[in-house]
Amino acid sequence: MNATTPPNQVFIGTFVHSKSLDELEYLHNTAVFVDGSTGKIVAVEREGDHSGRLDETFNKLGWSPAEASNKNGDVNFFFPGFIDTHIHASQYPNAGIFGKSTLLDWLNTYTFPLEASLGKDLAKAKKVYGRCVTRTLSHGTTTAAYYATIDVTATNLLLDICLARGQRALVGRVCMDDDRTCPPWYKDESAEQSLSRTRECVAHARARDPHGDIVRPILTPRFAPSCTPASMRALGDMARAEGLAVQTHVSENAGEIALVAEMFPVEAGEGKGYVGVYEAFGLLTERTILAHAVHLSEGEAEMLRVNGGKVSHCPCSNSAITSGAARVRWLLEKGIDVGLGTDVSGGYSPSVLEAARQASLVSRHVAMGGDDRAKLSVEEVLFLATRGGAKCVGLEGRVGGFEVGMEWDAQLVRLGGVDDDGEGESEDGGNVDVFGWETWEEMVAKWVYNGDDRNTRKVWVKGRLVHERV
Amino acid sequence: MNATTPPNQVFIGTFVHSKSLDELEYLHNTAVFVDGSTGKIVAVEREGDHSGRLDETFNKLGWSPAEASNKNGDVNFFFPGFIDTHIHASQYPNAGIFGKSTLLDWLNTYTFPLEASLGKDLAKAKKVYGRCVTRTLSHGTTTAAYYATIDVTATNLLLDICLARGQRALVGRVCMDDDRTCPPWYKDESAEQSLSRTRECVAHARARDPHGDIVRPILTPRFAPSCTPASMRALGDMARAEGLAVQTHVSENAGEIALVAEMFPVEAGEGKGYVGVYEAFGLLTERTILAHAVHLSEGEAEMLRVNGGKVSHCPCSNSAITSGAARVRWLLEKGIDVGLGTDVSGGYSPSVLEAARQASLVSRHVAMGGDDRAKLSVEEVLFLATRGGAKCVGLEGRVGGFEVGMEWDAQLVRLGGVDDDGEGESEDGGNVDVFGWETWEEMVAKWVYNGDDRNTRKVWVKGRLVHERV
Repeated sequence: MNATTPPNQVFIGTFVHSKSLDELEYLHNTAVFVDGSTGKIVAVEREGDHSGRLDETFNKLGWSPAEASNKNGDVNFFFPGFIDTHIHASQYPNAGIFGKSTLLDWLNTYTFPLEASLGKDLAKAKKVYGRCVTRTLSHGTTTAAYYATIDVTATNLLLDICLARGQRALVGRVCMDDDRTCPPWYKDESAEQSLSRTRECVAHARARDPHGDIVRPILTPRFAPSCTPASMRALGDMARAEGLAVQTHVSENAGEIALVAEMFPVEAGEGKGYVGVYEAFGLLTERTILAHAVHLSEGEAEMLRVNGGKVSHCPCSNSAITSGAARVRWLLEKGIDVGLGTDVSGGYSPSVLEAARQASLVSRHVAMGGDDRAKLSVEEVLFLATRGGAKCVGLEGRVGGFEVGMEWDAQLVRLGGVDDDGEGESEDGGNVDVFGWETWEEMVAKWVYNGDDRNTRKVWVKGRLVHERV
Repeated sequence: MNATTPPNQVFIGTFVHSKSLDELEYLHNTAVFVDGSTGKIVAVEREGDHSGRLDETFNKLGWSPAEASNKNGDVNFFFPGFIDTHIHASQYPNAGIFGKSTLLDWLNTYTFPLEASLGKDLAKAKKVYGRCVTRTLSHGTTTAAYYATIDVTATNLLLDICLARGQRALVGRVCMDDDRTCPPWYKDESAEQSLSRTRECVAHARARDPHGDIVRPILTPRFAPSCTPASMRALGDMARAEGLAVQTHVSENAGEIALVAEMFPVEAGEGKGYVGVYEAFGLLTERTILAHAVHLSEGEAEMLRVNGGKVSHCPCSNSAITSGAARVRWLLEKGIDVGLGTDVSGGYSPSVLEAARQASLVSRHVAMGGDDRAKLSVEEVLFLATRGGAKCVGLEGRVGGFEVGMEWDAQLVRLGGVDDDGEGESEDGGNVDVFGWETWEEMVAKWVYNGDDRNTRKVWVKGRLVHERV
């Protein structure tokens, strides 16, 4: 417990969360009780369970009530915090900068120079990481799976910032040690160094948050082409021995896939493909997040499913750097767990809501290819952004919904009303206009398609208020 | 001249506009002189043409100086106002609401009921149109080609609102008179009524703004399937006789295209296609804006080119309602003029900046199909949003850039700086973060990918300040 343990709190109003992949549950006039010492939901009193003014009741009990009431045509509701299953904090300053590049030239032109600079300049790292965490919190991201850089000190700094600001995070030092593909000025010197530097970061994370309540380490081989077999095997052994989570990239781009086939003819051979390389080195586990998975074969998907690997779908990135259109429906129907990743800065936005919007749009481009069932609904992309993401980061049952026993990782969303002449300026109210005749389903759709950080008024992690828009 | 003729003004700072399709021009430390009585740029003094403090000089001359200076790490620049070449003002409340529909079911489920309701309830129309104009101005839209509804009074109200608020607009009453496809509760009763109602709206527009300085009428047959041959022929005759602009839809969706082929076997026959129908009725002119043009044949594109018809590319809409991915590069290389349309509410956003962003992303989906040249750059999508749009609405040479003789339709864009610890909250500053080491090209790319209405601080039309974010 840290020094600023929040009080017991009661949240009162409308709560919206995923009941299943394709269904949202709307709990109106409901009270959710959050225990201050654990950050957990200890009771949910739904409409019908109670009568009268909830706020008065709980005031008497000495609980601190926070009411999301709807005034002046505004509409408020609580929604689970978003989970970003793939984001490179170190690349945040490059968000939106990618030209007409594709993956491999993008890495060399935009990415490696920026990442390398953070290890040489901790003040710069503080500015970049601080801003990235500020922004992601403001967009309602309560949990993020971060890639930092190869640098130990800067990676530890990112973890410290997340812990101080109260953002749940998996923080990975990037491992890349292959002379053939890594620039000499930005690489681990050897597999041994890759492992020892990783151990330093894991030790730091455990020292700061022994139970991983808020921040945790995650093993992060960049992607197969940048890692030697020795380093991948060592990381795979470490993952198994210590039960550590793993994150890396897979099957993002045609050139990359060809490179993997060339570099790993045995591991990828006989149809085992790119996924097979990670499987061969013990890196494909139930705690592994594979970003992209755009061009998987049937065999690779089956290998993923059997091993329980998770997929981080990164639609903004896949469109921006022309990687392809991932077949999310296809993955889901195989029983593979999928979450959303912003993939900053292949992706241009640190907002999971933007990723949800683009997941919907990209799914329609998949549908244009002939399979109308590929379309993802508003309900489905919001599932991916919350409960789907929770599975990817190993926090299902702890975050992603409002059941008793879950931790209070939540955002208060406000959508603005429109006055009669339509001329009122709501400077900080965001772009969602509620005219008053919409259904709840329609209001949530409006939020998904036109919402932004202005609609996320407050954000909590484990009961602690970590962002507020005043 | 209206009563509030602005003073003579000098704008000082950095000006960015399109030099050509694929090149932006950056004019730093430049002064642009705008005559108050005409709203026109009468002089441009570029860096090198002058020395010293421009603001002091012009203060002495009695001109009103407006300086876009960069303070506290913020970056300011003037950019031409955006031109939305296709937007249904009447559908604005449905922005973001479309489910998994495609064009024809979307019209019946979401669109016709809302449009019909505005004719029966002018207070509702005022609220909807007022809000739409407020929002589009806040997004930097200085010119919009609007579809209203079939209702004369409500359509005239939209034009009046645009004129009062100072937004340049082409306003069209929607013509739809075919019993086979229009709902009985939302249609013109006959071709004669379609024409007479249209004449009423044209007369109203001419009475309010005789020279069309700010607002103009535009003939608006909804799309071929909703119009009888008689009404289309009459509108075509009227367009030719009176030199009126025309707007309609073409080749958006497979089901629609099949319907057109079935309904117009002669006009569309022998490869003349959907475009051929408009050509047959005299509706394909140099002043015609055809929205979508997703699935054109080579022959249709050639017919479009020969007749000088314009294309409004609506990427948000085409993705959202699964219409397809328009081949913009292919159109441009044929010499066809292309602008951007938000197509609210097939499109989910009234922001042309969002349309530009999605034009870039959709072009990458076209490129994924095999033609890497299909990709549109940041420079190209901004050309489409300004000079390309100006050609579509017949205002090339009047708006879209900062040359002497052009009218001052502009926006002041501000991008926010980041402080050293990255923690500063810029509540109203928007999502673009300038770290200080970016090039101008990179800052503009960041604006295109993460910018929103918060970055558009002021908007002018014809010299008049029409929106300001305080």
